[in-house]
Amino acid sequence: MYRPQIKVLDCTVRDGGLINQWQFTDEFVKKVFVALSNSGVDYMEIGYKSSEKYFSRKENGAWKFCSEDDIRKITDGFETKMKLSAMADIGRIEPEDIPNKKDSVLDMIRVACYVKEVDKGISLAHHCMEKGYETTINLMAVSKVLEKDLDDALDDLSKSSVPVVYLVDSFGAMYSEQIHFLAKKYFEALPGKELGIHTHNNQQLAFANTVEAIIAGINRIDATLYGMGRGAGNCPLELLLSFLKNPKFDIRPIFEVIQDMLIPLKSEMEWGYHIPYMITGILNEHPRSGMKAMAAEKLPDLKKFYEDLVDGTPLE
Amino acid sequence: MYRPQIKVLDCTVRDGGLINQWQFTDEFVKKVFVALSNSGVDYMEIGYKSSEKYFSRKENGAWKFCSEDDIRKITDGFETKMKLSAMADIGRIEPEDIPNKKDSVLDMIRVACYVKEVDKGISLAHHCMEKGYETTINLMAVSKVLEKDLDDALDDLSKSSVPVVYLVDSFGAMYSEQIHFLAKKYFEALPGKELGIHTHNNQQLAFANTVEAIIAGINRIDATLYGMGRGAGNCPLELLLSFLKNPKFDIRPIFEVIQDMLIPLKSEMEWGYHIPYMITGILNEHPRSGMKAMAAEKLPDLKKFYEDLVDGTPLE
Repeated sequence: MYRPQIKVLDCTVRDGGLINQWQFTDEFVKKVFVALSNSGVDYMEIGYKSSEKYFSRKENGAWKFCSEDDIRKITDGFETKMKLSAMADIGRIEPEDIPNKKDSVLDMIRVACYVKEVDKGISLAHHCMEKGYETTINLMAVSKVLEKDLDDALDDLSKSSVPVVYLVDSFGAMYSEQIHFLAKKYFEALPGKELGIHTHNNQQLAFANTVEAIIAGINRIDATLYGMGRGAGNCPLELLLSFLKNPKFDIRPIFEVIQDMLIPLKSEMEWGYHIPYMITGILNEHPRSGMKAMAAEKLPDLKKFYEDLVDGTPLE
Repeated sequence: MYRPQIKVLDCTVRDGGLINQWQFTDEFVKKVFVALSNSGVDYMEIGYKSSEKYFSRKENGAWKFCSEDDIRKITDGFETKMKLSAMADIGRIEPEDIPNKKDSVLDMIRVACYVKEVDKGISLAHHCMEKGYETTINLMAVSKVLEKDLDDALDDLSKSSVPVVYLVDSFGAMYSEQIHFLAKKYFEALPGKELGIHTHNNQQLAFANTVEAIIAGINRIDATLYGMGRGAGNCPLELLLSFLKNPKFDIRPIFEVIQDMLIPLKSEMEWGYHIPYMITGILNEHPRSGMKAMAAEKLPDLKKFYEDLVDGTPLE
C-alpha cells in the first residue's frame, strides 16, 4: 500500500548545479522540468535564490539566482500541476531579493541553515511565509553537532510558524539507526509539523536511508535524477518512485530523461560513489577534501588520504 | 559496540569472475589475497569448484575450477589465519571432483542451489561435510518462489546437518522490509543454525540490506572489494568493514588494493549501478537481460527495455 501523504521533490538542478556552477543548458532544464511533470513528481527545485550582490553571473549559471525571467523561459507555455521550489541559504540572499509570491512563478522557498544559525533561518523563513510562499527549513550537517545544540535548535523550530523541517544527512555519514533515532527526536520535538528527508550517497545509503525515513513516518522526500548531486550525489529519483508505488507516478518519462540527458552528462561530470567521498562519509566529514581529490588529474594515495583525515581529527 | 560473532567473507574473485570468466592475472588474485588477509577478513572465496568435464579451461580462467595447484600458486609462502572457500553449484560438479579436506588448501565449500533443488544441495553439502570441510548452503533466488515452497525448503534444511544457511537476494529486488521478514522466517525455521547474507546492488541496497541483516542477527556476511560482482555487483567490503567497527579489521590494505587493482579493472569491465540492472531489480527479474543490454555497443531505449520487461511478465 502506498501512502498518499508522501510528496516527492526533485532537486537535480539545484543540488546537481553545485557540481557545475549551474551551467546547464536551457534544453537540459526544460527536459528535466517536462519529464518530472509528466512523471507526477510533486515539486521541482530549480535552483538557489541568491543575491547578485554576492555572486557573479559570470561564474554562476542562471539557477544560482532563479530570476523570474529565467524560470519563465522554462515553464511558460507548459501546463503542469507540479510546484516549483528554490532554496535560500542564510547570508547569501537579502530578504528584499525575494519577490512577493503573487509576482513569482515559485511556489515554495526552502531555507537551508546550520544549527548555529537557526534563528536567522527561522527569521528568513518567516519572511518568505509573509510574502506568501510555502516554506521549509532544512537543518544541515546535524551529524556533527552536539545533541544539546540540536535539541535547542529543534526547540526554537517548534516555537516557529515554519510548517516543515528537513532531516538532512549532509555528509552521507548516517546509517539506518541514526535516521530512526533522529526521526523520532524530530517528531517528538516538533509536534504538528511535517518532516522531510534529504540524504547523500557517500556510503551508498542515500536511497536506503530515504526508505528508512519513510518507514519512520517522514512524508517530504528529496531525490534527484540518476542520483545527480554534489560529491557522491543524492537519493536516485528512479529508485524512489519505484519504491513508492503510488499510481500517480509514472516512471517512464524518468527513464527517457535519464537516457537523453543524465547519462551523457555523467560521462562529462563525475558524481556518485567514489572512495574519496566514501572516506569523508565514514569519517563524518564535509566532502570538500573528497571533491578536491576527485577534481585532481590523478587520484591521491587513498590510504594516505584516509590516514591524513583520521590523523587530522583528534585534537584532545 | 561490535559483535565478535560476525564473520566476513570476501567473494570478489568468485562473484567478480562471473563478469570476466575468471580471467584474472595471478598478480590480481595474489594482491587480493594478501590485502584481505592483512585487513583481517575471515574468509576469502577464491572461486568455483566446477568439473572440467562440464567447462573448458579455454573459456574459463583458473578460478572456475580452483584446482589445488592453482590455489597453492597464490597462497604458498604466505602465513595467514584467513580461511579459504570455494563455491559449488548443483549440476556443475561431480562429488568425486572434490578432494578430501586433508588434501586441500580449502577450508570451506559453499553449496549454491535453488529452492527446487534443495535436496540435491543438501546431499552435496553432506558429502562435503563428510570429506571434512566447513559447509554452507546458499539458497538462491528466493524472491521469486512461492512462500510455501520456500517454507518446505527451509524445513528440509532444518532436518539436515548443514550448519549455515544463506539468505540470498539474487536479483537485488529486496528492500529492508523483505530482509527483516525473511531473516525472521529463516531464524524460526532453522533453530540452532547460523545464517548468512548475500546481496546484490541493483537498487543501491546491497550494503544497506547487509546492515539490516546484521541488525536482524545474521552473522555470516558476504562482500566484495569495491562491490565488484556480476551485474550491479555486491555489498562493498570497504563499507562493511567500516560499519562493523571490530578492532580486528584494518581497512587500510583494502584502500590500497582497491586503488592498485579494482579501480583500474573497473575502467575496463563495468559493474555497479546502471539503469538496465536497476530495472531488472525493481521487476524482481534475473539480471541476464540487463547484462545483455549493458554488453551491447549502444544502450537500448531504456523506456522500451522497461516496458518490454513489464509486458513480458503478465501471463494470467
